[in-house]
Amino acid sequence: MSNVAIFGLGAMGYGIAASIQRAGHTTWGFDVVAAQMDRFRSEGGAAGTPTEVAASLDAVAVVVLNAAQTEAVMFGDEGIVPQLRKGAVVLACATVPPEFARQMEARCAAHGVHYLDAPISGGAAKAAAGKLSIMAAGTPDAFAAAKPVLDATAETVFALGDEAGPGSAMKAVNQLLAGVHIATMAEALTFGMTQGVDPAQFVDVISKCAGSSWMLENRAPHIVEGDYTPLSSVNIWPKDLGIVLDIAKQASFSAPITAVALQQFIAAAGMGLGGEDDAAVAKVYARNAGLTLPGDED
Amino acid sequence: MSNVAIFGLGAMGYGIAASIQRAGHTTWGFDVVAAQMDRFRSEGGAAGTPTEVAASLDAVAVVVLNAAQTEAVMFGDEGIVPQLRKGAVVLACATVPPEFARQMEARCAAHGVHYLDAPISGGAAKAAAGKLSIMAAGTPDAFAAAKPVLDATAETVFALGDEAGPGSAMKAVNQLLAGVHIATMAEALTFGMTQGVDPAQFVDVISKCAGSSWMLENRAPHIVEGDYTPLSSVNIWPKDLGIVLDIAKQASFSAPITAVALQQFIAAAGMGLGGEDDAAVAKVYARNAGLTLPGDED
Repeated sequence: MSNVAIFGLGAMGYGIAASIQRAGHTTWGFDVVAAQMDRFRSEGGAAGTPTEVAASLDAVAVVVLNAAQTEAVMFGDEGIVPQLRKGAVVLACATVPPEFARQMEARCAAHGVHYLDAPISGGAAKAAAGKLSIMAAGTPDAFAAAKPVLDATAETVFALGDEAGPGSAMKAVNQLLAGVHIATMAEALTFGMTQGVDPAQFVDVISKCAGSSWMLENRAPHIVEGDYTPLSSVNIWPKDLGIVLDIAKQASFSAPITAVALQQFIAAAGMGLGGEDDAAVAKVYARNAGLTLPGDED
Repeated sequence: MSNVAIFGLGAMGYGIAASIQRAGHTTWGFDVVAAQMDRFRSEGGAAGTPTEVAASLDAVAVVVLNAAQTEAVMFGDEGIVPQLRKGAVVLACATVPPEFARQMEARCAAHGVHYLDAPISGGAAKAAAGKLSIMAAGTPDAFAAAKPVLDATAETVFALGDEAGPGSAMKAVNQLLAGVHIATMAEALTFGMTQGVDPAQFVDVISKCAGSSWMLENRAPHIVEGDYTPLSSVNIWPKDLGIVLDIAKQASFSAPITAVALQQFIAAAGMGLGGEDDAAVAKVYARNAGLTLPGDED
């Protein structure tokens, strides 16, 4: 059994921490929100501050929002990496640029610490069930050190390369598609409404036709039910599609569909919907076209 | 057993005609390409010109490219509808504007002929197997008259309304999604190449992740194999996304993602790829970014 710390107890990180703890490992959960840490301790998490436990850790999973937060956890004031024993591993799970992953790997190596480029996919429910997909890349030693954490949290581990970078590259590709598919689902559902297609009928028919997507099947029911409880929020997409377009631009790659989808999520955030479920991008289309979505009839 | 004529023996129409003939109906196949008619007759199709057989027909399936060809078959010089007996039915299978479907229904009614708004989805292989999805709308009498043809050709018939229009509306929604998903797959696959993601690895990983779509799973392998044999051609999309944007504009509905995807297919056609498989839209991205797609290494 290993000693594992998770930094970031949001919807994904909490599920990851719970899965690791359930697998029998001694598990610490850290977050800027004290209530989340208290909740995790009350459900079996171990006690102690990062500095108190750092030397005993075998693995650290960093499940924060972005590259800046990842770097702060790893190398900021009281950053964890310089405090780890040699041979420990950091799994970096946020969506970050591949070049950032390569830099973090090199900085960890200078401390004798392994780094696994390990972005995650699957959503909060799969995180809680220990059934994530992980797009992983790193040295064989990094994979070996991370194995207990991967076994406890993932249904599928894609081994994409023997140094950091390819995991984050594949995650960026996945986010391009996922973000565009959500916005396109919203565009199609509301376009259908202008042609007399009821949203519930849209889901029933299109999910069985060539126009379907994983995101359509997952998110369109939120619109039909008028339920925008954030499982994954609008604010994720300006961040993740922004990363995609940044690294695309650096490669002189023109991604016009992604660029337009990003604008729709920015418009949703501009309407004050950043904290709602990402299916709320449909409200941008509905407002532009004067449509009334389910749940907004009053 | 019924007497059925199919107008249009392209990939979809030929499969529909073969499925109807296989079900035991007397089946005529007509096309502007004489070789296609000869081929169908050699495989069991009945002999005779449209005018010779019109009065004996129970059902006509019109499986041509667009609204103009549909109208020409139905009401042009030697159009079939005025020659049909009262109570016969026309199944209109092309992607057309809903308003066009309503007009055709009314003009058929003036001749005592039923009209089924019956766009199809599923591709050439499912057409040949008699396992299409049909997005159908029309009067109960139209559905009843069309039943032998629907039974022979469809795995799933969505009954979307009791007058013409809703079938074509749902088809437009499906085409919006399908077209955007093809172009987005191409954008993501080529973007991935700039980040070191191999196209075959793209298919292996993304098809199991949240970024997947029906079209990605169906079309991305064509790019990996470098095989652009047209199962569904680039030229379909300027037509179908054009219909979507026309009727969206009439409804004052802004569809920015669809508009951009259309431009990518127009660019593919402008590169001379109109007759290739629609996955060839990836070549627009590859040329812009200086990438070499599989099969183009020489």
